[in-house]
Amino acid sequence: SSSTSPIRATLFPGDGIGPEISESVKEIFQAAQVPIEWEEHYVGTEIDPRTQSFLTWESLESVRRNRVGLKGPMATPIGKGHRSLNLTLRKELSLYANVRPCYSLPGYKTRYNDVNLITIRENTEGEYSGLEHQVVRGVVESLKIITRQASLRVAEYAFHYAKAHGRERVSAIHKANIMQKTDGLFLKCCREVAEKYPEIKYEEVVIDNCCMMLVKNPALFDVLVMPNLYGDIISDLCAGLIGGLGLTPSCNIGEGGIALAEAVHGSAPDIAGKNLANPTALLLSGVSMLRHLDLHDKADQIQNAILQTIAEGKYRTADLGGSSKTTEFTAAIIDHL
Amino acid sequence: SSSTSPIRATLFPGDGIGPEISESVKEIFQAAQVPIEWEEHYVGTEIDPRTQSFLTWESLESVRRNRVGLKGPMATPIGKGHRSLNLTLRKELSLYANVRPCYSLPGYKTRYNDVNLITIRENTEGEYSGLEHQVVRGVVESLKIITRQASLRVAEYAFHYAKAHGRERVSAIHKANIMQKTDGLFLKCCREVAEKYPEIKYEEVVIDNCCMMLVKNPALFDVLVMPNLYGDIISDLCAGLIGGLGLTPSCNIGEGGIALAEAVHGSAPDIAGKNLANPTALLLSGVSMLRHLDLHDKADQIQNAILQTIAEGKYRTADLGGSSKTTEFTAAIIDHL
Ligand SMILES: CC(C)[C@H](C(=O)O)[C@@H](O)C(=O)O
Ligand SMILES: CC(C)[C@H](C(=O)O)[C@@H](O)C(=O)O
Repeated sequence: SSSTSPIRATLFPGDGIGPEISESVKEIFQAAQVPIEWEEHYVGTEIDPRTQSFLTWESLESVRRNRVGLKGPMATPIGKGHRSLNLTLRKELSLYANVRPCYSLPGYKTRYNDVNLITIRENTEGEYSGLEHQVVRGVVESLKIITRQASLRVAEYAFHYAKAHGRERVSAIHKANIMQKTDGLFLKCCREVAEKYPEIKYEEVVIDNCCMMLVKNPALFDVLVMPNLYGDIISDLCAGLIGGLGLTPSCNIGEGGIALAEAVHGSAPDIAGKNLANPTALLLSGVSMLRHLDLHDKADQIQNAILQTIAEGKYRTADLGGSSKTTEFTAAIIDHL
Repeated sequence: SSSTSPIRATLFPGDGIGPEISESVKEIFQAAQVPIEWEEHYVGTEIDPRTQSFLTWESLESVRRNRVGLKGPMATPIGKGHRSLNLTLRKELSLYANVRPCYSLPGYKTRYNDVNLITIRENTEGEYSGLEHQVVRGVVESLKIITRQASLRVAEYAFHYAKAHGRERVSAIHKANIMQKTDGLFLKCCREVAEKYPEIKYEEVVIDNCCMMLVKNPALFDVLVMPNLYGDIISDLCAGLIGGLGLTPSCNIGEGGIALAEAVHGSAPDIAGKNLANPTALLLSGVSMLRHLDLHDKADQIQNAILQTIAEGKYRTADLGGSSKTTEFTAAIIDHL
């Protein structure tokens, strides 16, 4: 209805099932008249020396220019001499926070029906430093790096997010009883930020205890913020509670307000091209992207259509126990818009 | 019925609820005529310079001499200049493998009724090296150390355990896609050992995926072996699946055949001395100790009595939703022997 020019966003369809589920997103967004114009970029077939990976420099430039993007699964080709595609994106775009809303889908039964939490993962340092070496034969070490700057940045994001989304509590997850200096610094930064948000409750939970509490009673948690590896572990654990990575959206926040939403499941080469893939995770990631752009009406409209379609249960893809094709599921969502 | 002299075993009743639940173990073991004579050792009130902790040298000597022991919860006193009690025990006694059988308790309902797995945790190195320092202001690092020796030792134990207990599969849990050198060495050692056990299936599972699979379908797993921190996290996650640390036994295996079984829950100072504590974890740890001593008849007898008492549900402590006192629950178990 408005005549303002569309927002340009980068789309990485990715590998395997990536193109099919991206097609689903494009169709649904178009049907919902989302004012987005996609700039599609594929992973290259040769190493781009400027990125040291199969990602082209142009594709990174596209995200930098548009400040917003959506990414399907990318399978890093096997071989030496280049960097993982996911890690290259995180590094080159300074994607410092990985945000995963995780909630039970109405009508899709798992052992849990009471999950409603957000995991916020520091995405640039910690155990992912890449610094490792052999000390002597048979003795190797990896360095976990925690910095004040990155810890403050992600803590700031977590509290900002909690406040903006009407959340009540932020839990910092750590193992500072063992890693007193690294995780201790992370906690110190969280505490500093917490003081600026007196309206948000703040607590600290040791990671082992956190995992036990999550499987016993996930309703105990609201927003969780944590160093890189703990975030990797806990975000997947939480995805498992509601049915798996095929259902969970993810959005990476970068310096300068960049947002790169992504489906974090694999590229499922076994079913690629067969019209069997479930586009839900990529769709909900697209919804996260819309929220980041403050297009909340469109986000609500699409999210509700997805959730209703799944809840009704008539059209579900095979991974959810149904027999619908990707295109049938997509059409059903469009009917629910 | 035999007149052989009793086996001497060290008992650390520990702090908080420790003495009460230890009393329960002693009574039940006596009622079952277990041929064990306990050598009780309490945590000291001053730092013993020979151990740099509140653990006395004599108590460590007792475990070294007896080669077998049982330990209640120990709360490390707050303050500087001494080592954590748990870490001191692991270090001084070279307790290299922490073994936790984790199975659904019949009649005690959680969201899962199909858990039956064993977590085996490397207990001496990895992220627990204690090596940390500030590089420059605002930048700290922790060292994760993986050695061939410790990795082979725990892998060897895991496969030996799997074979001895009629288990089919060992899964090595790792993050070698990120920590290629450290976790890569751990996997390499597991593979070497796996080759010596062709009758046991071997697989490798990335830790984030493992946590997701565990909460979706724990029946997928059998024996899991992993580096220290992953073991810390996953063993608590698994305990959560079946109801928590109050129900899960644990046994630490040390060099030279030492076995120190322990309840891994806290000392619960809030209910200490009130006859409210649940002795199950310490009792089942005692059962692990008996199995280590090849006293399988006694182990079966006591384990069955505990499980039957819980399954019947008439006598349960408050943490399991009942209102029995520790002593009532203990008496009920004795009635079931
Ligand atoms: C594929 C892997 C390197 C990646 C990670 O560990 O970050 C993945 O697990 C994720 O969570 O995006
Ligand atoms: C108390 C803590 C140091 C300990 C650990 O991390 O090993 C505990 O969580 C455990 O699992 O025994």
